[in-house]
Amino acid sequence: MVYLDNSATTKPEKEVADKIYEMLTDNFGNPSSFHRAGLDANDEITKAREAIAKALFCKSEEIYFTSGGTEANNLAVFGAAEVGKRRGNRIVTTAIEHESVLKAVDELEKRGFEVIRLMPDSKGNISENQIFEAVNEKTILVSMMYVNNEVGSVLPVASIKKAVKRAGAPALIHIDCVQAFSKTEIKPDKLGADLISVSAHKIHGAKGVGALYVRKGVRIAPMMFGGEQEKRLRPGTQAAPLIAGFGKAAEIIPDYKEQARKISEINSYAKQNLSEIKGVVFNSSEQASDYIINLYVPTFMTSQTIVQHLSSEYGIYVSNGSACAKGKKSHVLSAMKLSDKIIDKSIRISFSRNTTKEDIDSLVFALSETVRDYPV
Amino acid sequence: MVYLDNSATTKPEKEVADKIYEMLTDNFGNPSSFHRAGLDANDEITKAREAIAKALFCKSEEIYFTSGGTEANNLAVFGAAEVGKRRGNRIVTTAIEHESVLKAVDELEKRGFEVIRLMPDSKGNISENQIFEAVNEKTILVSMMYVNNEVGSVLPVASIKKAVKRAGAPALIHIDCVQAFSKTEIKPDKLGADLISVSAHKIHGAKGVGALYVRKGVRIAPMMFGGEQEKRLRPGTQAAPLIAGFGKAAEIIPDYKEQARKISEINSYAKQNLSEIKGVVFNSSEQASDYIINLYVPTFMTSQTIVQHLSSEYGIYVSNGSACAKGKKSHVLSAMKLSDKIIDKSIRISFSRNTTKEDIDSLVFALSETVRDYPV
Repeated sequence: MVYLDNSATTKPEKEVADKIYEMLTDNFGNPSSFHRAGLDANDEITKAREAIAKALFCKSEEIYFTSGGTEANNLAVFGAAEVGKRRGNRIVTTAIEHESVLKAVDELEKRGFEVIRLMPDSKGNISENQIFEAVNEKTILVSMMYVNNEVGSVLPVASIKKAVKRAGAPALIHIDCVQAFSKTEIKPDKLGADLISVSAHKIHGAKGVGALYVRKGVRIAPMMFGGEQEKRLRPGTQAAPLIAGFGKAAEIIPDYKEQARKISEINSYAKQNLSEIKGVVFNSSEQASDYIINLYVPTFMTSQTIVQHLSSEYGIYVSNGSACAKGKKSHVLSAMKLSDKIIDKSIRISFSRNTTKEDIDSLVFALSETVRDYPV
Repeated sequence: MVYLDNSATTKPEKEVADKIYEMLTDNFGNPSSFHRAGLDANDEITKAREAIAKALFCKSEEIYFTSGGTEANNLAVFGAAEVGKRRGNRIVTTAIEHESVLKAVDELEKRGFEVIRLMPDSKGNISENQIFEAVNEKTILVSMMYVNNEVGSVLPVASIKKAVKRAGAPALIHIDCVQAFSKTEIKPDKLGADLISVSAHKIHGAKGVGALYVRKGVRIAPMMFGGEQEKRLRPGTQAAPLIAGFGKAAEIIPDYKEQARKISEINSYAKQNLSEIKGVVFNSSEQASDYIINLYVPTFMTSQTIVQHLSSEYGIYVSNGSACAKGKKSHVLSAMKLSDKIIDKSIRISFSRNTTKEDIDSLVFALSETVRDYPV
């Protein structure tokens, strides 16, 4: 298997899977129970919260566990809008956010909020200036992703704070760090973030758990109601096994510099070899994250067929757009105003710390054959 | 370990833990991906959906996966209220629901809905008549649990449909079956239910996954927005490992009659031996579920201290009220109008299919010593 779809999901590290199994079999108590079985499970949640806080350079009481990135994003957006609605009406975001932000703000727009969606340039980039122009004194929320999941654009999120200050806006700043977490240092203070979403299964943890960082002192409204868990911001029996696994995944994040060096090499190697396939065009910006390459493949097949062909013929796993959108035309490539011809035949390859040059060689070989055998 | 807190959470069966581990290590694709890794993960979700549908006597397309019982209850209550608000304003529920229903309807009350909370008698029972009196033509939702989690009362949920019909109400019927699932046959048609909540970790599955049954043709509004998963009623990458484990837990539910016979014996044995401890009073009704016994313990210790004492001195795990309420005074015993003296010193013991008479013997021995050494 050549797995090059790490932006969709990553393979859990063995330590993570082992930790989850240990919790399921030997530490299965309800973390809210007062007996030893409950306390033991709760201890693991405490440890995980500390590990994630350490990885996010924040306090452990600022970490709230959710069922994943989609829930963290929804909670951030709806939670901030609910408390902010008395102070203003504008929400600033971009047209290239993940569906869980885009569709959430669509819903808020229906409920009467004014939503500004910044448009990217043809390479998927958003400029600082666009943010400064969009944020006004009525802005209650700016929600922007750090790294785009389809083309890898790195957004100028550290400028949001300045824009909010200059406008005198009562805005909370939400940064969707689902794709950035574990790959680059995320410092809430440096980013000026009030809210940060992360997901375990994008950092070699398990599906079904994520977290929302909420800056100490910042209040947002819950979406769900029930027990006392997660200080009532997110009730429900905590998924202790998954949370413990998430903590383990955060603990074993490798050195950032070393990772960056390795991935930069993989990225250059991939681009160099892919560009030798005649007609290939890179949709990702030169400045994009090294983990993601979105490219046009010159063949008569459509993206989805290319993905299925690479899978069935070569055991190579790549993606057409975001997995969540399941076959729908990419809203990111559309926002970049690429032609339908390009959008229909573009794929995303995405790397992880475990990607090798051999993986790239296999991909390049398979794509070369594909382009040769199934030309435009 | 003598684990008698199965209403808080159950120990995952080995087959369940193994299935989850297999998914984490060998089948980790994103179930929305089009390549083989994605399709394989999705196949497991399909299988799990079928297994749960079979256990719930419904169609697999009527099962929607959530992150647990709390989310399923919130989705049912808010989702039904949102679509029903044009047709009426009344919500009928009881004062002894789980926090995830109680607090959700509290929130809806703040938003202008009229909430009727049926009060139990001193044994935790709700009568058919109460339901008939409460449901009127403006009722848009009746939300009631099948089996109460603190005292085990079995509610007359099968009467709701008649009450709704007689009143000519446009109400959806939601039944919280979190405690009942896997222990008794749940047939949506027989119960007249439109919505049913279940949770994996109460049926020897893992924490972090549950499901909402939504009768075919019934429409409720989503709480979260994002990708195309779960027909958009519940977006977000599906927690494939947990879902596959949930399916396994549903597959291995033992024969209901055989289970009922076994638990009835355990319950009688427990009550007989516990009643020999002088001063013990059963708070649970004679008609309550055999899986739960709530009792007053004649000691100067409070519930929480009793729980901690049994844990630390005897390795016996029981509960003070619901785990979710974490130390707060039981709203169920309060609604039953028990005296503070009783409420403050009551504990819940709850059985599973794996509970033995030896477990009961250990508990009775420990409680006898406790009552002797720490009298009122």
